[in-house]
Amino acid sequence: MRIEILCTGDEILTGKTVNTNYGHIARRLVEVDLGVHWGTTVGDDRPALLTAFRQAAARAEVVIVNGGLGPTVDDLSQEVAAEAAGVPLVLHEPWLARMEAFYAKRNRPMPPNNRKQAMLPDGAEFIDNPIGTACGFAVTIDGARFYFTPGVPREMRRMLDEQIIPRLLAKEGRARVTRLKRFHSFGIGESRADDMLAGIEAMAPANAVKLGFQAHYPQLETKLAARAADTAGLEAILAPMEAEVRRRLGNFIVAEDDQTLEGVVLEALGSGTLAVAETLTGGGIAARLVQGPGAETRFRRGVVARDLAQLGAACGVAVAVITPEAAAQVAAGLRESSGASHALAVLVALEEGNDAGGRICLGVADATGTVSREARLIGNRDWVRLGAAELGLDVLRRRLLGLPVEERVDFERR
Amino acid sequence: MRIEILCTGDEILTGKTVNTNYGHIARRLVEVDLGVHWGTTVGDDRPALLTAFRQAAARAEVVIVNGGLGPTVDDLSQEVAAEAAGVPLVLHEPWLARMEAFYAKRNRPMPPNNRKQAMLPDGAEFIDNPIGTACGFAVTIDGARFYFTPGVPREMRRMLDEQIIPRLLAKEGRARVTRLKRFHSFGIGESRADDMLAGIEAMAPANAVKLGFQAHYPQLETKLAARAADTAGLEAILAPMEAEVRRRLGNFIVAEDDQTLEGVVLEALGSGTLAVAETLTGGGIAARLVQGPGAETRFRRGVVARDLAQLGAACGVAVAVITPEAAAQVAAGLRESSGASHALAVLVALEEGNDAGGRICLGVADATGTVSREARLIGNRDWVRLGAAELGLDVLRRRLLGLPVEERVDFERR
Repeated sequence: MRIEILCTGDEILTGKTVNTNYGHIARRLVEVDLGVHWGTTVGDDRPALLTAFRQAAARAEVVIVNGGLGPTVDDLSQEVAAEAAGVPLVLHEPWLARMEAFYAKRNRPMPPNNRKQAMLPDGAEFIDNPIGTACGFAVTIDGARFYFTPGVPREMRRMLDEQIIPRLLAKEGRARVTRLKRFHSFGIGESRADDMLAGIEAMAPANAVKLGFQAHYPQLETKLAARAADTAGLEAILAPMEAEVRRRLGNFIVAEDDQTLEGVVLEALGSGTLAVAETLTGGGIAARLVQGPGAETRFRRGVVARDLAQLGAACGVAVAVITPEAAAQVAAGLRESSGASHALAVLVALEEGNDAGGRICLGVADATGTVSREARLIGNRDWVRLGAAELGLDVLRRRLLGLPVEERVDFERR
Repeated sequence: MRIEILCTGDEILTGKTVNTNYGHIARRLVEVDLGVHWGTTVGDDRPALLTAFRQAAARAEVVIVNGGLGPTVDDLSQEVAAEAAGVPLVLHEPWLARMEAFYAKRNRPMPPNNRKQAMLPDGAEFIDNPIGTACGFAVTIDGARFYFTPGVPREMRRMLDEQIIPRLLAKEGRARVTRLKRFHSFGIGESRADDMLAGIEAMAPANAVKLGFQAHYPQLETKLAARAADTAGLEAILAPMEAEVRRRLGNFIVAEDDQTLEGVVLEALGSGTLAVAETLTGGGIAARLVQGPGAETRFRRGVVARDLAQLGAACGVAVAVITPEAAAQVAAGLRESSGASHALAVLVALEEGNDAGGRICLGVADATGTVSREARLIGNRDWVRLGAAELGLDVLRRRLLGLPVEERVDFERR
């Protein structure tokens, strides 16, 4: 089935707003093995929209249109869809009632403009939007099925997952229940992860699970996109595969699904508290920890200085050279002065030369003593900074979970 | 002149790589008043590319193609361009020599695959790439002029600005020298800035300067896109307008062009040093300061805690409630304990209720004493956090530059 994505709106066309919706729709289609064949962007322009609809209909069987369902005069999707389908616009009474109820609940009168959002091409298939005033709909234009979705990202995402992808899978006579299982790892590159997971798709029935990767340095996201006839079947397929991914990627998995590494660290702390000392990462580690739930009580103190002596002074210790021992000393000093149960120190020495890399010394102090580790990352300053923050949080995670703190990561050079 | 942008590549089509090139090209075209009419995305697929070229040629006079100029077999732009233009591919000897020299300079042999990058459609106009191995070129297909650019963002950006936009402006018989002057402000929204700068375009000859805005909360970017026959003419047009923008936006301008607010703060410090205490912004302010040039010596210490008593303890003062006075006390304590010449404290009290907003108390301490200020921002937690970090840096900038620290910003609610 050839599927196209058609994004509308002047803000998107002119680059004023970054079009994140396109990438999201495309990735979701690829994840459920539907794929995407073509992308088009046009402005809020009647002739351009009409041409775009007709040309897409000639190339594809399915077109997902995003945007242009708002209440203002430059929102043209319904009108142009009706024109292209050769039908009039008609009022969709149930949606008008829903919008009126939506406003009534908020004790506001519905602006008259919103009525426009309930005008759909005659004979269109209604597609629910449980969280906004722009309903979706589907019509057939020149033999291709067009699905119209709102431009607001969270409304579009929900409609895509709950309403449109199931319809497309049903259209193909395929399993209708899908799930995307995600693992976040640190320390292995995409090609090594691919090797480590070789043959894993064969654990499931043919085409039931698709393995994919997305690298967001320093993390790698490993995705299992599964589908089955029902939820029980989905569970039965995914459970052993998830266990196998965990076994093969092992300690490198730092989080799963919506978890974050920093969230896992805060949770592993339990009733403990944490203090962090940083140099080049300059608050980057603290910034990640301090936002998580429970951070108010668990994240006790963060200290930042670019100068090592300054950092030591702020932690009550005298250190002069960046070494694993100095990192352990700073962590121990900070633990003492802050009264936290755990302290992490991440010291970075940038190497001479243009974007050469950096040497990273990590120390963790807790009630049982200190551990330290050293790593060298090659790359520019930003690369080293991001890698050092990740290494720091990962060393802490490993210490808290009783895993070996030293395990070579792919980005390291010795 | 109708201009289209055509982006190629499987990674872009499937959303695996976010397509930042599209937005950049579109914005630059709009800035020089050329505009953009249509965007297309296709994969590394010969029939799709050929169709895309033909359909774009039928709709537009100019098509900017991005990507597909690499050395591998899935890079198809030259081949499909030649096919669409009905000409053979021929070796561009000077580019082959340039690539060989490029590799020789790095003491590496040129991989044989790279030869492919010097094969251009017969009769194509060569477009230089001074920083990479993918040269650009232009050909005419079905009456439309196609400009081919590399997918590597910095190579594409330079080629667009230095080679392609001047050609397009010349094609329209328009002034060929362009400049984009940018002002970064904090505290005024787009519509207010638009009002404040009303009529400013009339200071220049008709159509010589285009005023534009781009909001990246919490900052607003104000852009003057100017063009003239030569550099002297450009200066003559822009100088009085720049002065007028500075006069009208006044103290709200925090930086210009490639400057950043944090860079301006570090520079204004001169030989002074800085320490920062943060709560909800949790290292976000330190993270911005610590990366700037000169931060090694000027940024002395950052302290982060979510708990106010903890933050006070780390700065050597006892504080219990978030007030402007407490912020001044923390700043003074931190200045004292760190030995820095200047200290900033940014305390944030999130308000009760779902995403209600936050009250922000700011204090700056220097050799002359302390100043403080309070602000209330409405919005969710991230919005408050970003706004608080900006307010903190801006208060410090104002103090360092001798400007009033208290001037109402548009995001504030009282």
